[in-house]
Amino acid sequence: MSLDVATIRETLKAVEKNKSTLMIGFNRRFDPNFAEVESRIRKGEIGTIEMVTVISRDPSPPPADYVKGSGGIFRDMMIHDFDMARFLMGEEFVVVNALGAALVDKAIGEAGDADTAAVQMQTKSGKIAVITNSRRATYGYDQRMEVHGSKGMIHAKNVHNTTVEVLSGAGYRADPIQNFFLERYGVAYANELNSFIGAVESGKRDPKPSGFDGLQAQILADAATESWKTGKPVKV
Amino acid sequence: MSLDVATIRETLKAVEKNKSTLMIGFNRRFDPNFAEVESRIRKGEIGTIEMVTVISRDPSPPPADYVKGSGGIFRDMMIHDFDMARFLMGEEFVVVNALGAALVDKAIGEAGDADTAAVQMQTKSGKIAVITNSRRATYGYDQRMEVHGSKGMIHAKNVHNTTVEVLSGAGYRADPIQNFFLERYGVAYANELNSFIGAVESGKRDPKPSGFDGLQAQILADAATESWKTGKPVKV
Amino acid sequence: MSLDVATIRETLKAVEKNKSTLMIGFNRRFDPNFAEVESRIRKGEIGTIEMVTVISRDPSPPPADYVKGSGGIFRDMMIHDFDMARFLMGEEFVVVNALGAALVDKAIGEAGDADTAAVQMQTKSGKIAVITNSRRATYGYDQRMEVHGSKGMIHAKNVHNTTVEVLSGAGYRADPIQNFFLERYGVAYANELNSFIGAVESGKRDPKPSGFDGLQAQILADAATESWKTGKPVKV
Amino acid sequence: MSLDVATIRETLKAVEKNKSTLMIGFNRRFDPNFAEVESRIRKGEIGTIEMVTVISRDPSPPPADYVKGSGGIFRDMMIHDFDMARFLMGEEFVVVNALGAALVDKAIGEAGDADTAAVQMQTKSGKIAVITNSRRATYGYDQRMEVHGSKGMIHAKNVHNTTVEVLSGAGYRADPIQNFFLERYGVAYANELNSFIGAVESGKRDPKPSGFDGLQAQILADAATESWKTGKPVKV
Repeated sequence: MSLDVATIRETLKAVEKNKSTLMIGFNRRFDPNFAEVESRIRKGEIGTIEMVTVISRDPSPPPADYVKGSGGIFRDMMIHDFDMARFLMGEEFVVVNALGAALVDKAIGEAGDADTAAVQMQTKSGKIAVITNSRRATYGYDQRMEVHGSKGMIHAKNVHNTTVEVLSGAGYRADPIQNFFLERYGVAYANELNSFIGAVESGKRDPKPSGFDGLQAQILADAATESWKTGKPVKV
Repeated sequence: MSLDVATIRETLKAVEKNKSTLMIGFNRRFDPNFAEVESRIRKGEIGTIEMVTVISRDPSPPPADYVKGSGGIFRDMMIHDFDMARFLMGEEFVVVNALGAALVDKAIGEAGDADTAAVQMQTKSGKIAVITNSRRATYGYDQRMEVHGSKGMIHAKNVHNTTVEVLSGAGYRADPIQNFFLERYGVAYANELNSFIGAVESGKRDPKPSGFDGLQAQILADAATESWKTGKPVKV
Repeated sequence: MSLDVATIRETLKAVEKNKSTLMIGFNRRFDPNFAEVESRIRKGEIGTIEMVTVISRDPSPPPADYVKGSGGIFRDMMIHDFDMARFLMGEEFVVVNALGAALVDKAIGEAGDADTAAVQMQTKSGKIAVITNSRRATYGYDQRMEVHGSKGMIHAKNVHNTTVEVLSGAGYRADPIQNFFLERYGVAYANELNSFIGAVESGKRDPKPSGFDGLQAQILADAATESWKTGKPVKV
Repeated sequence: MSLDVATIRETLKAVEKNKSTLMIGFNRRFDPNFAEVESRIRKGEIGTIEMVTVISRDPSPPPADYVKGSGGIFRDMMIHDFDMARFLMGEEFVVVNALGAALVDKAIGEAGDADTAAVQMQTKSGKIAVITNSRRATYGYDQRMEVHGSKGMIHAKNVHNTTVEVLSGAGYRADPIQNFFLERYGVAYANELNSFIGAVESGKRDPKPSGFDGLQAQILADAATESWKTGKPVKV
């Protein structure tokens, strides 16, 4: 909605006042794999959640100019992972620790941003989330998650281009994974649009992901940015 | 086209005479996974082909009444696998050996058909194809193939509903595979239709799979049926 | 025991008369993976067996001279797969169909043998086994099996050298599988020896695999050789 | 060597003075899978390292009494992961952030320890390591790592009891992974002993993992413990 939390809060008030329908474009919630993970967690298939891990790596970095206006890696990229961590955990985080560095492209570092980052967060009840990001993954768009609970673990693996595998003296070689978000989240975008249209048509006021979800993710992204810059944990 | 080879031959002559566009609905050639396998074989990725294996299992048997008019398992089901074996092998088969039995549903046996079958075929140059079929697979629509060549092996695995896996004391459990042809070959049907429309629009006379491909598959299906009934290899 | 069935029968009579302990060296029955498959089948985990597939490929062919005295591919190599098919199926086969060709090494063909072969067999009750062999597999020692039953499928996959996988633009590359029988069946040989020593120490007369198992496998190997040479099914 | 760094330093001096042979029992470096990962990293197979992830989960927690004398989860369990992170990264870490909670067993919390923990560390050059630990994994002894570099990713997967997989309407179920360290690291222990005996026999003074490796891991474990207790990053 905005890179500024105060602006977001005002927007949410306006939405409330005008009784508008607002849905935030966290497309990954609509990915059939991740939606299935969340659905099974809520059904209790792995018991009480203890830890959530979210891995997100882009195939290649944006131009350094881009990150100057994007708010940086925690706001333009990891924002999706903050939402995913909240979505899967089902609890709010109260502390955020971030590490980052420009290991992929020096120019990104000179522009004041990191291209490699790790965040760990904890909820009030002690549950832990770990997020790792990189602006580079030579093997494609790395989008994984795993959730550990008292009764087991559930995870979603990457999506390969095909089910083809070639066996030779070099080993077993499975086809590359899908390269970037247009391929990887094609179905998710369609599901998301349908969900939004359904909400508008039925007059549902607060479809998920809600404005509040957008606000919370932005607060975590701000906290991570501050933690990275100060080298200290940030309470939220 | 027909369960009768003579009728097919006449049809092909009529198509030729009328300069019509005919394409046979062997949808599996348009599956992105199988198309990729064939494409890499033709590029020589695994060297000279030596053996092709095609596995095809339906989730559950049709009513016994159906098989009375369908021509039987070799003609209504394995026909697709005969085409796939030809498609991958790139050579014609000269001998067909078939085994079959009604192990899933006695009524299918009483209707004169098998519900479980294996066929092995050989080309003039000695290359071998093995096809196995069953009318039942409790785990979904089993559609696999593997091709062995002088430089390696290439295979296509089944398509799972999601990439989700659950880990517990019982082991690692990956989601079931797609249940039947509507889900499994949704993309293949779309590709097939586009290919046919493209052929019609561009005036291409003999798109693949051609009428000849249909004829050859039917000849193999007839040979397998005869081999199963007589207990003898059939030359084609 | 011998490449001659009559000699084997005499040997078995001598063993019986002398109350000797005889165990046949079908080492694969002692592989922990295959033993586990058989054990679960016997417990009914996949219901009534309908089809067994055994895949066995050596990494590279023996010298053509070797096959002159070995009895040929069906007797020196596929013999293990005949035993495995009997072991998993738990029923005797009554008909054997074989195809073969020398596709890997012409000299093997000139020596009167095949280096690529497929066999399909059927039990009296109609159950089917399919075996495929090759003297060459560039990707290592291919030792797989799958068993289909009324309640599901159970299979054993190849054993990789390590669990290491490398991800790059070329895809996901898992380490090669174990190269040949010394690595692949190291544990099986140890288990086999322990089993034999245990039988001798305890005075058990007929440990498994028994002399009868050896005889039956040899009969199937002879039948396959005859079927390959005559181009006809052989009843056993 | 000791839970006290000062004592370790004195021990190392004594070893130096007496020209003794000292090797530290970080058995995991001798696991064939992890040794292969490290070897390929050093050969440059994935380029310059950017991030290391180490996952370690025990099947079930020790009695709460144990942790009172063990030094806690960071010293008795994660110590191995600190060593693994150093081993794979090939650089020293300069900052340590830790989160922890007693989510598995309240009594562990009452004894002053955590049973669920996450640590992130950074080297001077900015490279990042992430370690996650739990005292419980219903699915067995979870021992994984992944290393991301400029040219790709390399990881080692868990070791299953067998290669057996069962397919049914519930999905594909692979056998459980090895349950705990005796099974999982049997080969590693043998390799480790051989390596130590070889060092003693050849008079090699400083075999790997060295006393210095032991010291460094202990320093990281102390730092993590402090970070967890104070809620602040600790520089080392």
